[in-house]
Amino acid sequence: MIGIDWGTTGLRAYRLAPDGTVLARRETPRGILGIEPGGFPDALRASAGDWIDKGDTRVLVSGMAGSRQGWVEAPYLPCPADLDGLAEATVAVPFDGAEVRIVPGLCCLDRHGVPEVMRGEETQMLGALAGAEAATVCLPGSHSKWATMAGGAVTGFATHLTGEAYAALSGHTILARMMDPGAPADPAAFARGVARAKQPGGLLHHLFGLRAASLFDEITEAEAASFLSGLLVGHEVAAALEGGVAPPVILVGAPALTARYAAALDAFGVPHRSAAPDAAARGLHLIATRLAAWRP
Amino acid sequence: MIGIDWGTTGLRAYRLAPDGTVLARRETPRGILGIEPGGFPDALRASAGDWIDKGDTRVLVSGMAGSRQGWVEAPYLPCPADLDGLAEATVAVPFDGAEVRIVPGLCCLDRHGVPEVMRGEETQMLGALAGAEAATVCLPGSHSKWATMAGGAVTGFATHLTGEAYAALSGHTILARMMDPGAPADPAAFARGVARAKQPGGLLHHLFGLRAASLFDEITEAEAASFLSGLLVGHEVAAALEGGVAPPVILVGAPALTARYAAALDAFGVPHRSAAPDAAARGLHLIATRLAAWRP
Repeated sequence: MIGIDWGTTGLRAYRLAPDGTVLARRETPRGILGIEPGGFPDALRASAGDWIDKGDTRVLVSGMAGSRQGWVEAPYLPCPADLDGLAEATVAVPFDGAEVRIVPGLCCLDRHGVPEVMRGEETQMLGALAGAEAATVCLPGSHSKWATMAGGAVTGFATHLTGEAYAALSGHTILARMMDPGAPADPAAFARGVARAKQPGGLLHHLFGLRAASLFDEITEAEAASFLSGLLVGHEVAAALEGGVAPPVILVGAPALTARYAAALDAFGVPHRSAAPDAAARGLHLIATRLAAWRP
Repeated sequence: MIGIDWGTTGLRAYRLAPDGTVLARRETPRGILGIEPGGFPDALRASAGDWIDKGDTRVLVSGMAGSRQGWVEAPYLPCPADLDGLAEATVAVPFDGAEVRIVPGLCCLDRHGVPEVMRGEETQMLGALAGAEAATVCLPGSHSKWATMAGGAVTGFATHLTGEAYAALSGHTILARMMDPGAPADPAAFARGVARAKQPGGLLHHLFGLRAASLFDEITEAEAASFLSGLLVGHEVAAALEGGVAPPVILVGAPALTARYAAALDAFGVPHRSAAPDAAARGLHLIATRLAAWRP
């Protein structure tokens, strides 16, 4: 089979053996934002057409391709949701030469009735934690996701706009004038930002403190971007821990990013571990094995 | 005398009677960001030269004109600071035809040793609260200031980057796509944002909740900007109250802005009142009366 993790700004294609082994992987910047209406079949063909031609005619797609702005809308599945539920809720889309199905995203309400959504992360989470143990899973990013899992299901989750807030604040406030966005990551400055986030005063106050520190030469342009990152990640982690977590927290994502969250969790004294790579591929394979239509 | 409140993006000039009465006021967009090095004397002349020619030859300037990027740097005065301290620390600048002095800004350390600064707000605060009572004063804005005052002095303060964060988040994240920045202020949506800020989860999570609410048609484009404003002001007020305040909180600033903070303080059940207009003019007059060099 072929697994596709199709996000807003990129696409990852996996060629998978029947036992789930990743035989080949490709990554392209053809996220759904770059695709014209009606252009999805051609984009899939460009990404994996040669694999399809070789006989891999089952294609399972997760991510934003199932959103209103995507290929076909696959309505959000309410939590708790497990592999069987996701398999049953996949949506078939017409495609010449292959069976293509789209995995839905998940939705839930927080305890105050505010809605939450994800698309694609559910597949990674269920791929990262195939067992039935209770766990907290974190997928850092522009929209960081913290989910609770139990009994092989995603039972609830919360999103933090951390990555986007970092880009907006570092690029479009007075902080932009005091930081070198090209400076290499500085773990010590990141740790200072996390430590600041643990103090009272609130994020909006801590943001100004970074500005004031630069006026008094207490932070350099090279350090400031990492400090800001630590400050925001620290506030995210503090808020996520407030709701209670079941350690170890399982981190899913690119090592450069999960390493920052690992450092922040260390600062809060919370055990954590990183998921194995290719969580999306594993999740797509596991969902495919539950698909009634694809049973041998 | 003439009082000038010279900020980053604007200048307010006041012609003041010996008893402090405002005889005339002018406002221009000639903030320090728009002035070339060496251009300050001409800018002052353009703003108040006719008053000087008529015999008002004492000019007291507060605000960013005393910063490193301003006319002459007037080093920050540490808190606690009162009218006498500010008067003594004014810096004279050469000017043909008038005695011009610049009021310094204030600095302090928060209880964690992080520096804080203000320039111009100290003059407004001391103008808003001429008495010796203990009070909390709030000046909302791009960089909102919350100060404690006692015995006629500013004893300490904290800044929140609220206004700048609003501009960056509303203009440069996914939230920009779901809000109408031209919509009129919506007090009910603002109140919803404040109420959300009182719930746990953290600001970064609440920001994503606004996005998710729009996906489920729980908020309109016309409401979203006011909701975001309420969310940020609510987080600012919650953090400011955390440190303890001496009510009533005294709000200083333009009525359209202070009204929002009044609504947020109501939501938190904290008494407040608005300062009389022209707090900067009153503060400049009061500092001038303490200036030894200007005693009759």
